[in-house]
Amino acid sequence: MEHLGIDLLYLAPGANAQYLSGWRRNRPHFGNVNYPGGWIQGLLLGLDAGPILAVPRMVADFDLEPNATMDVRVLPDRGDPITFLDGLLGEFEPRLGAIAVENRAWSEQALALRQARPDVEQRLASEVLAPLRMVKEPEELDAMQAAASIVDRAMTDIVPFLAPDSGQTELDVAYEIDRLMVKYGADGSSFVTNVWQMGPGEVRPLAMKASRRPLERGNSLSFDFGSALGGYCYDFGRSVYLGEPPDEYRRVHALVMQAAQVGIEALQDGQRTAEQVDGMARQVIVDGGFGDWFRHRLGHGIGLDVHEPPYLDRGDGSLLRQGMCFTVEPSVFIPGQFGARTEDVVVVGGAEGGRLLTSYRRDLQVIA
Amino acid sequence: MEHLGIDLLYLAPGANAQYLSGWRRNRPHFGNVNYPGGWIQGLLLGLDAGPILAVPRMVADFDLEPNATMDVRVLPDRGDPITFLDGLLGEFEPRLGAIAVENRAWSEQALALRQARPDVEQRLASEVLAPLRMVKEPEELDAMQAAASIVDRAMTDIVPFLAPDSGQTELDVAYEIDRLMVKYGADGSSFVTNVWQMGPGEVRPLAMKASRRPLERGNSLSFDFGSALGGYCYDFGRSVYLGEPPDEYRRVHALVMQAAQVGIEALQDGQRTAEQVDGMARQVIVDGGFGDWFRHRLGHGIGLDVHEPPYLDRGDGSLLRQGMCFTVEPSVFIPGQFGARTEDVVVVGGAEGGRLLTSYRRDLQVIA
Repeated sequence: MEHLGIDLLYLAPGANAQYLSGWRRNRPHFGNVNYPGGWIQGLLLGLDAGPILAVPRMVADFDLEPNATMDVRVLPDRGDPITFLDGLLGEFEPRLGAIAVENRAWSEQALALRQARPDVEQRLASEVLAPLRMVKEPEELDAMQAAASIVDRAMTDIVPFLAPDSGQTELDVAYEIDRLMVKYGADGSSFVTNVWQMGPGEVRPLAMKASRRPLERGNSLSFDFGSALGGYCYDFGRSVYLGEPPDEYRRVHALVMQAAQVGIEALQDGQRTAEQVDGMARQVIVDGGFGDWFRHRLGHGIGLDVHEPPYLDRGDGSLLRQGMCFTVEPSVFIPGQFGARTEDVVVVGGAEGGRLLTSYRRDLQVIA
Repeated sequence: MEHLGIDLLYLAPGANAQYLSGWRRNRPHFGNVNYPGGWIQGLLLGLDAGPILAVPRMVADFDLEPNATMDVRVLPDRGDPITFLDGLLGEFEPRLGAIAVENRAWSEQALALRQARPDVEQRLASEVLAPLRMVKEPEELDAMQAAASIVDRAMTDIVPFLAPDSGQTELDVAYEIDRLMVKYGADGSSFVTNVWQMGPGEVRPLAMKASRRPLERGNSLSFDFGSALGGYCYDFGRSVYLGEPPDEYRRVHALVMQAAQVGIEALQDGQRTAEQVDGMARQVIVDGGFGDWFRHRLGHGIGLDVHEPPYLDRGDGSLLRQGMCFTVEPSVFIPGQFGARTEDVVVVGGAEGGRLLTSYRRDLQVIA
């Protein structure tokens, strides 16, 4: 922070706050849930003062785990939040030239900060935190491995659960995956579980959302899901085929798996950049003639967030370092025909290449 | 907007954006999911120009429902988002003295706006939208009723599902509720489903989160959940008792139901303010001797968000008007003893009082 000229971090609940303090996010709500002065919530860490945890009264009463080591300040239900904020900031003055806020804090918080201190520069917490979070500590890798094992077990159970042409829907499968992940120890899903078909009768162009469409033979079925465990996020994918696949599907599926293997082996410490790995795996699919249908980056960093830097993507020149975690997730999605994908989290290794955290099979499975 | 001196609304995905355009939010992820320039996402509505829908390329490709009537601008993967934003804002100039941003847009968006237009005032979208959303249109009430019917059916199914002293956990019950709501037509849960016990052996003070604790006779079991349907949110609650309840529980449960009835009947058009209704229902519990254990407001407005103004709470002097929707949710939670609650959404009516949207029974149910 000193090096960057940042005097105070104001971290609304999120991955950055957990990374520095252990304060866990809750599972998110679909509709907004509001408490008086709810935007005040955050961990304030200064160069010379703090940490302070600021919360509204209802969060203090109903949501906080007791934690004897944290200095908690509670905004009363009918207290004026700007006055309260003014008092909090005062504890970090006079050295308060720049505050870095959580990138995904509510704009309401950023506006209130501007109102309380019009002359203080506002920056983004990612400037401080993103570089720190890229290389995972051993205990973080342990957490990711535990999340991966849950996903392996859920996927192992879900394939025999699939029943095409029985009325079973994509959403039925998605909810069973969520239930299985919790059964095997997850706190929940790390992102909304996706299960979707592509085939000749599919009108959604590239829609990656589980729907009420029943599973039907003659479609590919793709999975994209992950467990959340202790704040860490996993991200996993496969595609299976419902019924006997056309030969072209077998070829494309094999091509995608070959691209994944190239990506996994390329994840070597100090040997290349993130974008070079994207290029190497992408070339396999381009050479196979399907480059136009691989329409996203090869992968993303992952840890306390699902998508975090660096990215295996054109334009990301980060040098790979041992202990970085990436998804490797090539795909070929052809609207009106089929989709084939695979995704695992891979830890950057030495000369031997990346280490997969999930061990689930990658050969083509045909669901009779 | 003209009256308030606001020239442009910049609405990140959320209830406000849906209210004005029909653009639906996705279900939320636990861990951040990031696309290049993801913070650009929003609907821009000016006094003289727009609406424009701004999205990053990956959202345009994988997430947008085709909509022929919307003017969509796509930020390319490697485009500079600030330059792109500058171009967007240019279309609303020269009349651009004040922009109102979605209260829960990311702070990253507010900071980028500041960078692109340092001299433009930033305000909050709630200034414009909150008053409009308070009184529900007939089609909104239909949507809320449809969400209510799903909740009635899920609750009807879940009570016979309860199996205390069998190893069944709070989380097992919560996941079954989620599955049932989707089975009966919901898009998902409107907020994270809560099912929690309170009793002599319960160490969590007021913790309202479903856990892996098995259901045990001798505890109260409280429910707090709702369906999301077409963007509208429901919010419902009851408490049951596992095994034979002590007499005091029967008395407290009846007291809570009596307070609810007073609140429901008080929801009359033009007769009183939101805080007066809170006071009337609260008095029932205070008079019964349990006022110290009713530790939250009587209720909140509800619609496209779970909690939205007005609030049945001290300090909210809003006059009640026909078509407003409120939860009525008195409770008595005594740590180490038990909890009793009830919650329905109620539409403000005429002299006859409020109209309940859920019809599920409110008498005490004993789960043998």
